[in-house]
Amino acid sequence: MRKKIVGVIGGRECKGEVEQLAQDLGIKLAKVVDILVCGGLNGTMEAVSKGFKAGGGSTIGIIPGYNKKDANKFTDIVIPTGLGLARNVLVVKTADVVVALPGGAGTLSEIAYCLQFGIPVVSLQSWDIRGVIKIKTVDEAIKQIKLLLKENKL
Amino acid sequence: MRKKIVGVIGGRECKGEVEQLAQDLGIKLAKVVDILVCGGLNGTMEAVSKGFKAGGGSTIGIIPGYNKKDANKFTDIVIPTGLGLARNVLVVKTADVVVALPGGAGTLSEIAYCLQFGIPVVSLQSWDIRGVIKIKTVDEAIKQIKLLLKENKL
Amino acid sequence: MRKKIVGVIGGRECKGEVEQLAQDLGIKLAKVVDILVCGGLNGTMEAVSKGFKAGGGSTIGIIPGYNKKDANKFTDIVIPTGLGLARNVLVVKTADVVVALPGGAGTLSEIAYCLQFGIPVVSLQSWDIRGVIKIKTVDEAIKQIKLLLKENKL
Amino acid sequence: MRKKIVGVIGGRECKGEVEQLAQDLGIKLAKVVDILVCGGLNGTMEAVSKGFKAGGGSTIGIIPGYNKKDANKFTDIVIPTGLGLARNVLVVKTADVVVALPGGAGTLSEIAYCLQFGIPVVSLQSWDIRGVIKIKTVDEAIKQIKLLLKENKL
Repeated sequence: MRKKIVGVIGGRECKGEVEQLAQDLGIKLAKVVDILVCGGLNGTMEAVSKGFKAGGGSTIGIIPGYNKKDANKFTDIVIPTGLGLARNVLVVKTADVVVALPGGAGTLSEIAYCLQFGIPVVSLQSWDIRGVIKIKTVDEAIKQIKLLLKENKL
Repeated sequence: MRKKIVGVIGGRECKGEVEQLAQDLGIKLAKVVDILVCGGLNGTMEAVSKGFKAGGGSTIGIIPGYNKKDANKFTDIVIPTGLGLARNVLVVKTADVVVALPGGAGTLSEIAYCLQFGIPVVSLQSWDIRGVIKIKTVDEAIKQIKLLLKENKL
Repeated sequence: MRKKIVGVIGGRECKGEVEQLAQDLGIKLAKVVDILVCGGLNGTMEAVSKGFKAGGGSTIGIIPGYNKKDANKFTDIVIPTGLGLARNVLVVKTADVVVALPGGAGTLSEIAYCLQFGIPVVSLQSWDIRGVIKIKTVDEAIKQIKLLLKENKL
Repeated sequence: MRKKIVGVIGGRECKGEVEQLAQDLGIKLAKVVDILVCGGLNGTMEAVSKGFKAGGGSTIGIIPGYNKKDANKFTDIVIPTGLGLARNVLVVKTADVVVALPGGAGTLSEIAYCLQFGIPVVSLQSWDIRGVIKIKTVDEAIKQIKLLLKENKL
């Protein structure tokens, strides 16, 4: 049976509390899903990948450039697309459910694609757009993800 | 000298007042810019292209599929990308300035890309996202576009 | 009525005889088709665009990066895809017929896409692959292009 | 440490001897590399994935459409790109080494991309293009792949 994949999106820069949030989310997500997909670079992507690996999961990084070395070191499988920002579509479409962490316009484009594709997106202290599931804590996010994966028929 | 290009984004469905708005915008934009780029399909894209052609301009349609016949009939040059929604990136990146008309998640993803690229985006009764220039009427939009094109060093 | 578009593909480096060939091809193509599409960069792309402009035509450059300034100066409309080599698909798919000039693996990938899409491709001293129309001189190429455009129902 | 990935390319239709060849190749490749990447659809892609799974490996399918269900059932991780034929770039770029099986223009475009990227490509009864490593049997292919993976510094 095909494995479930969770996507996490968020800013390229993430420090302090948000970094901690991303890492904590990663660790706890690894307990409910086998595979994480993200943009594969630094900031939020690195923090959540680090946590997910620590939690025992496997990670896919879909990066904008052609150089696999651009991926953060917590990435098991690198997809070097060379597509620039168009790779955002692939990141969310590869996921069955998505968690959005704080981020800028890039994160917003990914949330928009989720909404267009009908992929459920949990906004954890991120953009408040009609259609997202607004959540405040990692534990609530995990509860939502569990629920969504149960409903979701891959 | 390279010609200036205006991009217009908006929903696939557009009727009544919004259709009128899009067409009117097209006609008036053609007086200030030579080339229009849009997603090339129906709805807002068709209405604005119709207006822009009526105003004397040339139109480029960057479509998601491979079939040139999918483009609306007011499209002079069709770029059949076959890229699906990833073609949204190309629509806005080809433009020097963008006007957003009412639309859903697709329009939101395009606004987000504008913000990420630093392409000025005038929101004409569309999404109210931090970073866009909010405008209520076509005439105000035209005034803004003129201003932006003057500042913009292609 | 939609305008016919000719695509020209070939190497990034082109000197001496091949440069002359590309420029001459461009000049003569402009007498039979209104619009040229190519990869928009230097080498063959620049030489053929220079010729096509000199012959009175309009040029579209579909470039791999995001910076319009990367396009050669004979490009009227720049499509800055940011897609890297994946933009090769768009170059040939935008064309109704394609002429291949001498080139390496990039040119080969574009010829392959032509064959896959069923776009007629005239090989002017370029790759000899089953399915291409092999031609030795610019004048023969022009004769073929005229014939193909007559058959081709856009 | 990042895992090595082998790519296999080939025709959408594959029957009889070629199907057997693809399946056999898959089984034996799984003994030397952990992960297989391919286009994820039917024909050669399905046969080699079936073999690779039987041999104990994990498979990635990078498909042209958006529907994960289009992937063959031997695909562990589906990347639904929606990019059409532009996804060919991603298939080969994700691989460290590539084996080409018999195929048409699509396979040729992928070989061309390998050559352009400098990814070693072993042609097992497939296209004979300057730059590929021509091989006649699966066992020779495996020997070459082992050699290439040793040289290749990921």
